[in-house]
Amino acid sequence: MNVQPIRWTGESVEFLDQRLLPERLEYVTCRTATEVAAAVRDMVVRGAPAIGCAAAFGLALEALRGRDLAAAETVLAASRPTAVNLFWALERMRGLQGEAAMTEAVAIYDEDLAANRRMGALGATLVPDGARIMTHCNAGALATAGHGTALGVIRSARDAGKRVSVIANETRPYLQGARLTAWEMVQEKIPVTLITDSMAGHLMSRGEVDLVIVGADRIAANGDAANKIGTYTLAVLAQRHGLPFYVAAPLSTFDARIADGSGIPIEERPEAEVTGYRGMRWAPQGVRVRNPAFDVTPAALISALVTEKGVVHAPDRDRVSALLAASR
Amino acid sequence: MNVQPIRWTGESVEFLDQRLLPERLEYVTCRTATEVAAAVRDMVVRGAPAIGCAAAFGLALEALRGRDLAAAETVLAASRPTAVNLFWALERMRGLQGEAAMTEAVAIYDEDLAANRRMGALGATLVPDGARIMTHCNAGALATAGHGTALGVIRSARDAGKRVSVIANETRPYLQGARLTAWEMVQEKIPVTLITDSMAGHLMSRGEVDLVIVGADRIAANGDAANKIGTYTLAVLAQRHGLPFYVAAPLSTFDARIADGSGIPIEERPEAEVTGYRGMRWAPQGVRVRNPAFDVTPAALISALVTEKGVVHAPDRDRVSALLAASR
Repeated sequence: MNVQPIRWTGESVEFLDQRLLPERLEYVTCRTATEVAAAVRDMVVRGAPAIGCAAAFGLALEALRGRDLAAAETVLAASRPTAVNLFWALERMRGLQGEAAMTEAVAIYDEDLAANRRMGALGATLVPDGARIMTHCNAGALATAGHGTALGVIRSARDAGKRVSVIANETRPYLQGARLTAWEMVQEKIPVTLITDSMAGHLMSRGEVDLVIVGADRIAANGDAANKIGTYTLAVLAQRHGLPFYVAAPLSTFDARIADGSGIPIEERPEAEVTGYRGMRWAPQGVRVRNPAFDVTPAALISALVTEKGVVHAPDRDRVSALLAASR
Repeated sequence: MNVQPIRWTGESVEFLDQRLLPERLEYVTCRTATEVAAAVRDMVVRGAPAIGCAAAFGLALEALRGRDLAAAETVLAASRPTAVNLFWALERMRGLQGEAAMTEAVAIYDEDLAANRRMGALGATLVPDGARIMTHCNAGALATAGHGTALGVIRSARDAGKRVSVIANETRPYLQGARLTAWEMVQEKIPVTLITDSMAGHLMSRGEVDLVIVGADRIAANGDAANKIGTYTLAVLAQRHGLPFYVAAPLSTFDARIADGSGIPIEERPEAEVTGYRGMRWAPQGVRVRNPAFDVTPAALISALVTEKGVVHAPDRDRVSALLAASR
């Protein structure tokens, strides 16, 4: 796919406006960290690895102009709480000035793209020929520097000559599956079937799903994985139906400082996302609303973690620790 | 609640147009069985018991005018395939002419209302004080002659002095939870929290749900229950979290001729319900779509069936058979 979710021009960063897809392809140009933070918060750009890249470019913009990096870091850190890639990128950029900051931001971007391609190659070995693959939200090119994590595995499997098809859960409330994953797969000419999130169990019970693969926003030291709301339910269903449940994520998504999933902060987003869509309201006045944007899938429900440094089967504290140690 | 989903005038039947709720309260008037069949197919009126009442009134309209009842039965039977109450009502009306048909249709309606009140009283004993009750779709007054099945239990529990609150799953694609259940609960002043279907597992995992109760569209001889798509997933999640999972349905929803859930026909509805909502399309062109309107929950996942003739705990073939035998 030729569409780039993030473009660095040397003096600005441009984000493909994912709020408008698939109807319109428009870029939003950001010239300050504050503008980048707003783009992240408003979901112009989303997806854990892409948020990491965005934050790095946000700091680079300030560094190139010789502005206060501590203030920029604070505003970026406050944009979205769950994806750890954001904090990982801020940490990696810390103390860098001027051109060095720009170079590092570009490196973060390039490394993410390379990591996705490597994850794709490793993950593709887990995908049988003819597999009907369910995925949730968008862990695709749009969520990363390119290629994608979960969708990267699917792309690589297809590129390796495997016949694959995708079942995309629409992913309410923000419809990343219906709008972004379905669009990416149509662009790639990979057959894709759209369903509502509520249909996943039914399709599994009828034998219409071979495996599930998703991305992650933060993976704790024991392998528990936070990802888009609804992921946990898919993992429970996959276990019941004896289906493999894979999580594809780069090492920048791991947070070794958090022992297990209970320590991962879960963002609550605005009520309007649940009471309707894009300004249309279908819920009555007077109703309360919950809108947690993520949930936590326990490691015990994850068949394997797919990373750029290897596949961790049956992840637990020891295996995750070994992965992180080996890649330091 | 004073709103009546179905009104019989003696020469027409009026349905509260549930496609327009909660924005507008408008009735659609039907004077022929064909008009009633269209109202059922287009979901002006929906919910298994309400569909049964609607079909009975459809035949009564023809009978009162001395028209061909066999043709009317055929058109009504073709309106929606899953809810067995439709076929149950047609069978009960068969052979009745003129005033006798009208009297029977009114009896079906009155009996449904009475059954719901009785189910409510029986089911309320299962609801602890302070219960946070999750429900799916709309099994309320709007889905029946009045009071409701699952929501009837909640209403009766509240009327019995219990403090209850409701978590309403929005129920994509048709949003019966967001539009209808939330609205009914707001009318009743029962606290209601709206979530997307994908959030149910997360709330259970955080200990924010005490029990689940839903309606049914057809219950097989072994207790397997077809209900709105997404119900099966909730039952799987409830089992994982040790939560009671109740199904409230009148005897008219039981189909003793079907041995188990695999024999229940599952309606596939139009693609446009999944690719968007009310004429707004958010999915890209080129995507395939599945839209099964129902799924089947195995009896083993159901803590109890709540009927007007008693509560069947841990339902199986023998216990369902005993219930049906005792009520003949």
